[in-house]
Amino acid sequence: MCRFVPFAERDAHSMAKLKQFSREYKEKDTVINIGDITIGAKSKVIIAGPCAIESREQLLAAARIVMQGGADIFRGGAFKPRTSPYDFQGLNEKGLEYLAEVRDVTGMKVITEVIETTAVHVVEQYVDILQVGSRNMQNFPLLKAVGRSTKPVVLKRGMAATLDEWLLAAEYILYEGNQQVILCERGIRTFERYTRYTMDLSSIPVLKKLSHLPVIVDPSHATGQHELVSPMAMAALVSGADGLMLEVHPNPSEALCDGPQSLDSAEYIPLMYQLKKLEKFLHEVNSKKCYEETVVATISN
Amino acid sequence: MCRFVPFAERDAHSMAKLKQFSREYKEKDTVINIGDITIGAKSKVIIAGPCAIESREQLLAAARIVMQGGADIFRGGAFKPRTSPYDFQGLNEKGLEYLAEVRDVTGMKVITEVIETTAVHVVEQYVDILQVGSRNMQNFPLLKAVGRSTKPVVLKRGMAATLDEWLLAAEYILYEGNQQVILCERGIRTFERYTRYTMDLSSIPVLKKLSHLPVIVDPSHATGQHELVSPMAMAALVSGADGLMLEVHPNPSEALCDGPQSLDSAEYIPLMYQLKKLEKFLHEVNSKKCYEETVVATISN
Amino acid sequence: MCRFVPFAERDAHSMAKLKQFSREYKEKDTVINIGDITIGAKSKVIIAGPCAIESREQLLAAARIVMQGGADIFRGGAFKPRTSPYDFQGLNEKGLEYLAEVRDVTGMKVITEVIETTAVHVVEQYVDILQVGSRNMQNFPLLKAVGRSTKPVVLKRGMAATLDEWLLAAEYILYEGNQQVILCERGIRTFERYTRYTMDLSSIPVLKKLSHLPVIVDPSHATGQHELVSPMAMAALVSGADGLMLEVHPNPSEALCDGPQSLDSAEYIPLMYQLKKLEKFLHEVNSKKCYEETVVATISN
Amino acid sequence: MCRFVPFAERDAHSMAKLKQFSREYKEKDTVINIGDITIGAKSKVIIAGPCAIESREQLLAAARIVMQGGADIFRGGAFKPRTSPYDFQGLNEKGLEYLAEVRDVTGMKVITEVIETTAVHVVEQYVDILQVGSRNMQNFPLLKAVGRSTKPVVLKRGMAATLDEWLLAAEYILYEGNQQVILCERGIRTFERYTRYTMDLSSIPVLKKLSHLPVIVDPSHATGQHELVSPMAMAALVSGADGLMLEVHPNPSEALCDGPQSLDSAEYIPLMYQLKKLEKFLHEVNSKKCYEETVVATISN
Repeated sequence: MCRFVPFAERDAHSMAKLKQFSREYKEKDTVINIGDITIGAKSKVIIAGPCAIESREQLLAAARIVMQGGADIFRGGAFKPRTSPYDFQGLNEKGLEYLAEVRDVTGMKVITEVIETTAVHVVEQYVDILQVGSRNMQNFPLLKAVGRSTKPVVLKRGMAATLDEWLLAAEYILYEGNQQVILCERGIRTFERYTRYTMDLSSIPVLKKLSHLPVIVDPSHATGQHELVSPMAMAALVSGADGLMLEVHPNPSEALCDGPQSLDSAEYIPLMYQLKKLEKFLHEVNSKKCYEETVVATISN
Repeated sequence: MCRFVPFAERDAHSMAKLKQFSREYKEKDTVINIGDITIGAKSKVIIAGPCAIESREQLLAAARIVMQGGADIFRGGAFKPRTSPYDFQGLNEKGLEYLAEVRDVTGMKVITEVIETTAVHVVEQYVDILQVGSRNMQNFPLLKAVGRSTKPVVLKRGMAATLDEWLLAAEYILYEGNQQVILCERGIRTFERYTRYTMDLSSIPVLKKLSHLPVIVDPSHATGQHELVSPMAMAALVSGADGLMLEVHPNPSEALCDGPQSLDSAEYIPLMYQLKKLEKFLHEVNSKKCYEETVVATISN
Repeated sequence: MCRFVPFAERDAHSMAKLKQFSREYKEKDTVINIGDITIGAKSKVIIAGPCAIESREQLLAAARIVMQGGADIFRGGAFKPRTSPYDFQGLNEKGLEYLAEVRDVTGMKVITEVIETTAVHVVEQYVDILQVGSRNMQNFPLLKAVGRSTKPVVLKRGMAATLDEWLLAAEYILYEGNQQVILCERGIRTFERYTRYTMDLSSIPVLKKLSHLPVIVDPSHATGQHELVSPMAMAALVSGADGLMLEVHPNPSEALCDGPQSLDSAEYIPLMYQLKKLEKFLHEVNSKKCYEETVVATISN
Repeated sequence: MCRFVPFAERDAHSMAKLKQFSREYKEKDTVINIGDITIGAKSKVIIAGPCAIESREQLLAAARIVMQGGADIFRGGAFKPRTSPYDFQGLNEKGLEYLAEVRDVTGMKVITEVIETTAVHVVEQYVDILQVGSRNMQNFPLLKAVGRSTKPVVLKRGMAATLDEWLLAAEYILYEGNQQVILCERGIRTFERYTRYTMDLSSIPVLKKLSHLPVIVDPSHATGQHELVSPMAMAALVSGADGLMLEVHPNPSEALCDGPQSLDSAEYIPLMYQLKKLEKFLHEVNSKKCYEETVVATISN
């Protein structure tokens, strides 16, 4: 009698061939340089800003807060993928102009999401980093298009994507020649209802074993609740993430998109202060000196 | 003390506004006519064919089997969204030509997946129905593009999409003016590993309550296992589906894509014969005469 | 560099050893006889009754309806596992007495859930079949206790149990010497919110391949919505289930437990009539004569 | 036309009544004292030890390592709930004796899992804390039995339990009069396959909002991979957990249960050293002094 084979067993074989994302292909961590910012190196990168670009005033107000907190990169969505066609769909190219203005005024690097192959060329003229959102993680023409861009790409995890599928989506970008891929964990869909998604922090150390690519975390989308962003942002760095993406809005209660998960300045500024303390702590703990202390402590115990 | 609100409670509000997909908007079932075929009316529609168009020979061989079984519409993928960039990506426009040839030779209507907005115009010249795949269910520019087409659209459920999200994706197409949307259940992602996805058949009667749109089921992708296709195809029709989408390949063991879930002629032909018997049975059971018998039986008991 | 192994790959090995539940151990279907009723043979078994035994009057009223519809076995919960301690917890032994009275009066066999090892001995004196509920699928002392009983056991699937885990839970019962195990699919927990659980009908043909044990389906708990019970009950039989477990209540709106998923007589009686027609249809379709017709039809096509 | 109501909307009502677990019922954090150890107060509690008690030698060797690292409480399973009946089922009462010996020799408090109501009385004579495992989270007779014990109870989250269901399970214990309940997050079941479960760290701050009960985290079961335990243990404390439960084995490769997720002394001792540094850091960051610095930093920025 022939054994009925679980689909999962067959599926595992797709990972057999050597992939460019893998540690087997490239052992050393990929470090991405954007001006004076590095992603994937020792220091943690913070990307912050509003979900959607709503107006010039809103964007400049958000940028002021974000810069004050000391984030490295400013985010803002010009093209918004929204569940319902009746929701605000973004300012499109006008939004890109405002974003460029923020860059000029503040000196911060900027990132925005691109949702269409035909828009990649326009978007990359305005921004320093392209983002591919969760809903497009397996939009393969889009992956190929950003794979031909010279700009780094933040690739968000699909809400039901396994780590293998996510890494293979990254492979599409690498395969086209763009080596600057940053993975961004943003929560997976589960049965739990208090949070918008379930933030899968154990994915961080797993990805670090499987791949040389930098990994950041978006606790705003993962939790969907601004009260949860601070503890989860801290936990993400501790789990080994190379940085964070945070939603910050000058007035969350009037946001056109994802207000409930956005930090206002009263939440964002203290969080940034704590993140810097945490980063310093993590450097110490992971330092050679600390390691030696640990060894001594272990032996003497 | 202020109560912490589950995300799920906030989320529910997004369905409040009247939507075009809803029974409240249009009470009567939408029926789509394509030549002499109707989808959403009494008779069940069967779409069948290979996952990918691999060659002219393979496609014609598949078409011969599919026609022999009596399916209404022939399917075949010219543009293939594949998890890995190293997998076969489709024959592209050459594939569309072969598909058109099948239509000319057999008289069957044809359907193919479109994965890019820029390709919609070309694809709709070759086929009778456009398909939007699971991975693109929330590719909003693509939904808008097919919403401006004159061809009917099969919209597959995203692998982690709630029914609300799926219906709102359909709303994007309706909102652009295309009223010919067919929903296609194809399984959701769960923890179970024997099947590729978990086929959610209870979605069929729920969708029938919420919406006037036709609903079909793809048991091939849902299960990922050819041995499971026949029982699940039968169960889908019984649960109220308006039709089926089946993967059929002349030689599944040599298929370039999804062979293990494809039926060969020895499985497909008997299934089609049984489906026709089942359809006849369902007509009888749902007939006025049968209802009256039931009432009599109930009273006399 | 050493590859990081997915947990799922390690996990697969636990199924290697030959198990008593498997087709490899026993190829022929297990058929369970309870008086003149058989479970796992050709004819489908219907178990019906209220979720909870609330009073003698309610139980007798339910039994009258259930018997009128022609179900084989009557169900009613005396010990109720409830999510909250403030919910009705059952009538306990008083409930068992009412159940025994139903058996005496109607001649129907009866089944009830047992939730504690110490209660097995008492419960088996009152009922014909023991039920182990979803929440206790991995209550191993309870599995061992019912494994030492002489009464057949309905083992419900845990809400997050893989098929392997469920079968291994059945193995605990078989291992103790009780060969009369009936598996009952009742839905798994997923992200979908319209239904209480997601009814996994593809589990039926998979179980039939892996195991010789009979499999039934509970569409009431799976969907949580009485409007969905009829289509899902029909679909379950078509997918290959050996029977059904249905919740029936004389007055669902006043039920102390799970009213919204209970059928009243106006829903139950016509469903039973249709199920009988469906059963007859399935016998015909699976008959030798029909198979020969199919072959002829295939060849002549 | 009547709206079809999602099950999730109906379900929400079950949380309406005031519950003993809630912040509305008791605003101040519950602190549990066991000798000189406190759980739920400022200092983090570490529970460590092997999954199963395999022999006197193995247990004493494990205890030596655990004590050397400075954990507060020693764990070891005498009664093992195992997926397969062919797996090691525990040493039962002999195991309890060894556990008591560890307590006598080392002075550490001890905890073990209880899997049966009838065993509660015996187990509580040997140990300082009772544990109710994931598979028994909704074993209501067992919850009631430990609710009548004078010993604190660690209640693990069911692998598919929502936070509401978990808290209502805790309510069963509180309702019976035992106020010493410690919640333990141990991962939920999702589609991801690299880890055994998905560790839901955002549950920690949510629980802290909803309830006054202490919350600890088990990164060993959650991940199923020893390489992931250290980063996830650190992340758990940062997310607000009151402590950790860690699996430690003198020789993981020869463990009879869950070896791949067990730390050996070379992993455990440095982790404990780092956890102590982290705890000190968290005290500083959450101190009044640090808060004032933050305010100053914010204003001066």
